Amino acid sequence: MKPRIQKIFQNLSPAPDALVFANAVDPHLDQTFFYVFDVPAGLFEGSVAIAHPDGKLDILTASLEAETAREAAKRDPNVEVHVIGRDETDAEAKRILGGATTIGLNYRELTHEWFLRLERAFDDAKWVDASNAIRRARVTKDPNEIQLLRKAAEIGSKVGREIPGLLKAGMTELELAAEMEYRMNRFGASGRSFSTIVAFGPHSAEPHYSPAETKLKAGDSIVCDFGAYYRRYASDITRSYHFGRRDDEMKRVHETVEAAQKAALEAIRPGVPAKEVHLAAQRVIDASPWKGRLTHGVGHSIGLVVHDGWAYAGTAEDPLEVGMAITVEPGIYLPGHGGVRIEDDVVVTKTGYEFLTTAPREYIEVAA
Amino acid sequence: MKPRIQKIFQNLSPAPDALVFANAVDPHLDQTFFYVFDVPAGLFEGSVAIAHPDGKLDILTASLEAETAREAAKRDPNVEVHVIGRDETDAEAKRILGGATTIGLNYRELTHEWFLRLERAFDDAKWVDASNAIRRARVTKDPNEIQLLRKAAEIGSKVGREIPGLLKAGMTELELAAEMEYRMNRFGASGRSFSTIVAFGPHSAEPHYSPAETKLKAGDSIVCDFGAYYRRYASDITRSYHFGRRDDEMKRVHETVEAAQKAALEAIRPGVPAKEVHLAAQRVIDASPWKGRLTHGVGHSIGLVVHDGWAYAGTAEDPLEVGMAITVEPGIYLPGHGGVRIEDDVVVTKTGYEFLTTAPREYIEVAA
Repeated sequence: MKPRIQKIFQNLSPAPDALVFANAVDPHLDQTFFYVFDVPAGLFEGSVAIAHPDGKLDILTASLEAETAREAAKRDPNVEVHVIGRDETDAEAKRILGGATTIGLNYRELTHEWFLRLERAFDDAKWVDASNAIRRARVTKDPNEIQLLRKAAEIGSKVGREIPGLLKAGMTELELAAEMEYRMNRFGASGRSFSTIVAFGPHSAEPHYSPAETKLKAGDSIVCDFGAYYRRYASDITRSYHFGRRDDEMKRVHETVEAAQKAALEAIRPGVPAKEVHLAAQRVIDASPWKGRLTHGVGHSIGLVVHDGWAYAGTAEDPLEVGMAITVEPGIYLPGHGGVRIEDDVVVTKTGYEFLTTAPREYIEVAA
Repeated sequence: MKPRIQKIFQNLSPAPDALVFANAVDPHLDQTFFYVFDVPAGLFEGSVAIAHPDGKLDILTASLEAETAREAAKRDPNVEVHVIGRDETDAEAKRILGGATTIGLNYRELTHEWFLRLERAFDDAKWVDASNAIRRARVTKDPNEIQLLRKAAEIGSKVGREIPGLLKAGMTELELAAEMEYRMNRFGASGRSFSTIVAFGPHSAEPHYSPAETKLKAGDSIVCDFGAYYRRYASDITRSYHFGRRDDEMKRVHETVEAAQKAALEAIRPGVPAKEVHLAAQRVIDASPWKGRLTHGVGHSIGLVVHDGWAYAGTAEDPLEVGMAITVEPGIYLPGHGGVRIEDDVVVTKTGYEFLTTAPREYIEVAA
């Protein structure tokens, strides 16, 4: 009995006879395949997972990753691995699904091509969109997932602590990003969980900036937004620094963002609509001289991908639940001048929240 | 007039009134969005591209990446950027598509959820699967694409030349992978194009191995398979090395793989079925003491993703065309002992091929 599979089925009423997760070619892989099949490595392009209401799981895969799949299945008596040729997938799926008439699919991560292929193979099946049930299951994490998220967050935090020591006048944003990603890998990441953002000076006022050849110079604000993958689980952390020559305004901006994040964190509690977390941060910022300078939602769910399921802003009614892993990332952006964002990953607990990320959040001025 | 858009339409008969490329949430992004819209950075989650038979392009995107989109559109009078709210996408798409009745979609990279959303928005449209037309267009590269592929390949080649100098007894596979990825970024990559493979000793006999804590020791074969992204274009290169204590068998294996690759490369010519490239390599290996030890197809197309469109093995009838960018990567694997793979990226030319990757391919023994 695999609890994650049961968790998905519990969110479906009436429950379908089976759930099918079908991977196309990278990057078009259904992350739910890896949610139900705990396999640490491998792409599993073209592979299919069939999950049953009794919590059993069938994995259909080609010989390329057969060993990896078998190794993972050894640890779990609920998983059966079927190694097949690429053109045998449909027939093997039919054999396994037998008399199943209602089949749940993850419309959100299934390609339309795969859907049509399934429709041809199972011409009298009734299809059920299980996307929301899957999202609901994946959005609250079990202890194993939290352990992996914590590990990914620790890697990010270690890098966050090292950034001040890496800053040198004249270095480019891309150079700093390369140093940060190198350290993530050295600290045990299997890679970055998204394209690292490093923004110097006025660029730090652009929330989704891509690092380029801009050189670091005294007086610059610095925003670093980055994350690691650890055994498929992601972290997402932002730290802001100031380089050289004091800028009193940016120091106060930093302190305001820190206060906004504290207020947001204090709003976290099971049952609270997610918007309250956003609004708590927004209230602090809108009561400051930088009213209106929070230009994005304050957070999102994090898990097998960095944007895992949903994001929240001032209108999100979804209530927080114990075990949700979310980011809390207010920011203030002064176009043409600079920006500050502070982002942490937390898990919702019975009484509030627990930090996953831990690097210092306060204003840090690095000598130029 | 955007030639890439025209190239897709030319492959569709009858041509639809428009092509729509819709991105879901990362990683479920249609790479064709970035094929028709030459924008160097940004994720463009939830964004839509509408391509017209006259080669014009409409981009529908939210404010988050509006500046990036506008900047890219400035360089191209055929592109119009529409900055809209997330919930205005369907209405704006309807306005732009006006009287279009047949609409082409990329079923292969479109989520089923997006398809249903389009079906609701355009209730009397006739949908056309443009996947194959898109693949056909994308599989032969234009000069701009070749320039970016060459740049990505050069980054990989530079790293390949540095690997012998990085090898130290006792280092782990993950450590070497971290050093390699660090150098790719320092040499200008925006990231790796896939999970770096570093395999020491017996692991080098597993073609799709994931690097772990195995330590390098004298006598080990080493396989490094890695690639860079440069402005969204990928490279994919494999080099094999030997560490310390001479192993005569592995030296001969290396020489055989090199000869197999040479034979494969010599088979490349426009009009030749791709299988001939595979079979040329296979014949060399099957005439050696390691008959049957080539256990995978010899190559694949490379472009906006590392597996860009198709792969070829001994049965691929698709003829090679001028401008195709492909990998040529024979290998010999001796389970429990070690493996050798040599992989280069090449472009098919009128008379044969041109290398994109350039690092030395011959047997290199690094002193332990």
